[in-house]
Amino acid sequence: MKLSEIASIIGAEFQGNDVEITGMNTLKDASESELSFVSNAKYVKDIKNTNAAAVIVSESAKEEVPENTLALVVENPYWSMAILSKYFAPPIEDDTLPEPVIGKGSKVSSKAEIAKGAVIGENCTILAHVYVGAEAVVGDNTILYPSVTIYRDCRVGNDCIIHANSVIGSDGFGFATNNMGEHKKIYQNGNVVVEDDVEIGSNTSIDRAVFGSTLIKKGTRIDNLVQIGHNCEVGEYSVMVSQSGLAGSTKLGRNVVMGGQAAAAGHLEIAPFSTFAARSGITSSIKEPGKTYAGFPLMDHRKWLKLQAKLAKLIKQN
Amino acid sequence: MKLSEIASIIGAEFQGNDVEITGMNTLKDASESELSFVSNAKYVKDIKNTNAAAVIVSESAKEEVPENTLALVVENPYWSMAILSKYFAPPIEDDTLPEPVIGKGSKVSSKAEIAKGAVIGENCTILAHVYVGAEAVVGDNTILYPSVTIYRDCRVGNDCIIHANSVIGSDGFGFATNNMGEHKKIYQNGNVVVEDDVEIGSNTSIDRAVFGSTLIKKGTRIDNLVQIGHNCEVGEYSVMVSQSGLAGSTKLGRNVVMGGQAAAAGHLEIAPFSTFAARSGITSSIKEPGKTYAGFPLMDHRKWLKLQAKLAKLIKQN
Amino acid sequence: MKLSEIASIIGAEFQGNDVEITGMNTLKDASESELSFVSNAKYVKDIKNTNAAAVIVSESAKEEVPENTLALVVENPYWSMAILSKYFAPPIEDDTLPEPVIGKGSKVSSKAEIAKGAVIGENCTILAHVYVGAEAVVGDNTILYPSVTIYRDCRVGNDCIIHANSVIGSDGFGFATNNMGEHKKIYQNGNVVVEDDVEIGSNTSIDRAVFGSTLIKKGTRIDNLVQIGHNCEVGEYSVMVSQSGLAGSTKLGRNVVMGGQAAAAGHLEIAPFSTFAARSGITSSIKEPGKTYAGFPLMDHRKWLKLQAKLAKLIKQN
Repeated sequence: MKLSEIASIIGAEFQGNDVEITGMNTLKDASESELSFVSNAKYVKDIKNTNAAAVIVSESAKEEVPENTLALVVENPYWSMAILSKYFAPPIEDDTLPEPVIGKGSKVSSKAEIAKGAVIGENCTILAHVYVGAEAVVGDNTILYPSVTIYRDCRVGNDCIIHANSVIGSDGFGFATNNMGEHKKIYQNGNVVVEDDVEIGSNTSIDRAVFGSTLIKKGTRIDNLVQIGHNCEVGEYSVMVSQSGLAGSTKLGRNVVMGGQAAAAGHLEIAPFSTFAARSGITSSIKEPGKTYAGFPLMDHRKWLKLQAKLAKLIKQN
Repeated sequence: MKLSEIASIIGAEFQGNDVEITGMNTLKDASESELSFVSNAKYVKDIKNTNAAAVIVSESAKEEVPENTLALVVENPYWSMAILSKYFAPPIEDDTLPEPVIGKGSKVSSKAEIAKGAVIGENCTILAHVYVGAEAVVGDNTILYPSVTIYRDCRVGNDCIIHANSVIGSDGFGFATNNMGEHKKIYQNGNVVVEDDVEIGSNTSIDRAVFGSTLIKKGTRIDNLVQIGHNCEVGEYSVMVSQSGLAGSTKLGRNVVMGGQAAAAGHLEIAPFSTFAARSGITSSIKEPGKTYAGFPLMDHRKWLKLQAKLAKLIKQN
Repeated sequence: MKLSEIASIIGAEFQGNDVEITGMNTLKDASESELSFVSNAKYVKDIKNTNAAAVIVSESAKEEVPENTLALVVENPYWSMAILSKYFAPPIEDDTLPEPVIGKGSKVSSKAEIAKGAVIGENCTILAHVYVGAEAVVGDNTILYPSVTIYRDCRVGNDCIIHANSVIGSDGFGFATNNMGEHKKIYQNGNVVVEDDVEIGSNTSIDRAVFGSTLIKKGTRIDNLVQIGHNCEVGEYSVMVSQSGLAGSTKLGRNVVMGGQAAAAGHLEIAPFSTFAARSGITSSIKEPGKTYAGFPLMDHRKWLKLQAKLAKLIKQN
């Protein structure tokens, strides 16, 4: 898509080199043929280091855009980005893709649907009512139980087990809101990558990234009814117990344990070997590795036990 | 079904005009050919305004029944209502209904099931393993991802996206309990109406109404693993983040935001533009619009922040 | 599998009677042809009463093994047990089993999959995209809504209703962890038994037992998005409201009510007729029947109300 066309769609003035834009990305990751945006004052300082072909900005941030990058000035950059995201969304299915490839020794139920362009490794078991989307890749020796859905472009590694009715790659919860309170979908054009030896329970949802990948690293164990938001990263050998959840872009180090119904806010970094008791509520990053926490607001697990004792005492007094 | 037959099923005495009863409904909404009931002393005062053909009541409420309405007196009106609800439940599928209608430009996977009597609009994408039940209606340009289930009689608007494995129209959680502690199912003979431009995440459940409709208004955004009970109403442009939930009959105004794992009790009314932080627990109605809340029990968000600071101080003291 | 072979797989010394081992089980339930293990010092005292053919133990517990039972000594018994569990796992599907049996009057969608060896009773309604696994048994008059998955060997009784996308029999969340922090799956070779007249909502997960059965007793009502861990027991006429959860091996007595988002830790016993308000967090067993609780940590419901009042007062003071 030509940059001039993009400018026209979002009503921005356009002057300069009318390059072909191949996609959208973050300021940091955008290549010289990609478009980026700044919607939050916090990120204005990062504009000067971008390699993006063009950046959608508000009037006030225009001056920060570096020399080789074009500024597309609009009133609501986030809303404009949302409008454009649709143009870069691939089709859900694509009849022009090659027939799916099924590896040697794999058993695929005749009632499963493997979309064109998908690749299934060797010795897999794909049960009835599974869906593997366009250009998705499943490794060797992996078991997909009934009604598992793998959305297009997602990757599942070797030796994985995904239990019934879990979803890998549904859209992240992303939208822009205008001052009328209306929402505009931000198409989630990234994917999910599940590495080797991961087991995922039933009825769990792992959302695809808006750009790049939501990443589930090797050896991780995820239980039933777990929510993992877009662009999260779950470290090696981490454990997420049933009904726990991660909001978008949160990164767990290796061997992190999230107890049942525990949850973390978005954009946090959690140190390796951190353990969170059931129903912990994590609202800020954890830097020191290997500690145990509980409560909401979160506190050291021993402090939490103490607090409970004090509350019990408080209630006994008159 | 004749009123005399109904009386006989529940063991009530019957005298009067043996009219044909076409369904059951609330006191307020019942028409002159419908049956209603009073199971809660709180609603006895509403009996006198009903238009119902007959009302199932206990001995003590009999006198309140208006002149043109017949009183069917039983010991446990709720239990009797539960027994009768089954008789008014339509069949799950019905071979006598016409073939489903698929609008121009819609792509329906050969592995989807569109039941007889269903209507799919134009330019829809219906992926594998989707189920659209009898007499359900899906609007134009709507995308149903794999293994989405739309139960019979439900309606989904135009320009909607429903992600994999979500369920629209499963039965509300309704039953009567007798004094032996046994439960009797109350058939949920209402439906779900999802208006236009609604996006629903994966593994989300929206229950059908017992009477009338569970209503999801236009422009709403619902994330993964969300629970919406029977007879709820979600206002325009509202946002429900992952793992949040609404118990039955709660009504959100427009642009209400429910944070992750937040939940509301049943039968509440929440003012427009209310925002609830993650894990808020809402137990009473909110009248003033536009405020922000947190905690369980719920409080003003700033008060909640203060309370957290005080608790932190409390724990530090010896 | 010969005991000598088992010893060789886990690197244990073997001397004695090389019997054929037919399965693994707990110390208490293992028969004379089964293998057991002790991984927790708490259970060492139970070794002396086992009938198991052999027990995997650490050096320190070796002396407790009774005369007719063989001790297989390893460094990490839990890890060794995990390795062996795979050898006793039946195949997911088995082409040598007989064709499934469908009872008189049952309607099974051509888009459902009933695996070989399964048995469906009379007058059932099995909708599209349902999966009933190998040797699973479904009773009479039972309704399975679309995309319900019943894993192999599970049993569902008569007069049950299971709503769309719920999963019966996914693997319990079991694994051993070595001192490198790596996890080894413990194959869940038990099943789920759902008795008669049980209704289960949509998107609910009930995990199969590691040994024996996860048990849902008759007349129980389970809502949407509920989690029931492996080896749990839910008593007759119990009620689990949406988004509630039970960790593994917890047993509810009859007529227990778990409110919305309430949860119980593992290995607890909850007395009959206990009621837990929404979002209760249960961390120890309840012995006295018929009481009402709330909060996390859990307390008597009236105490909880008092505590809330005190907290409110605390926040008002300066």
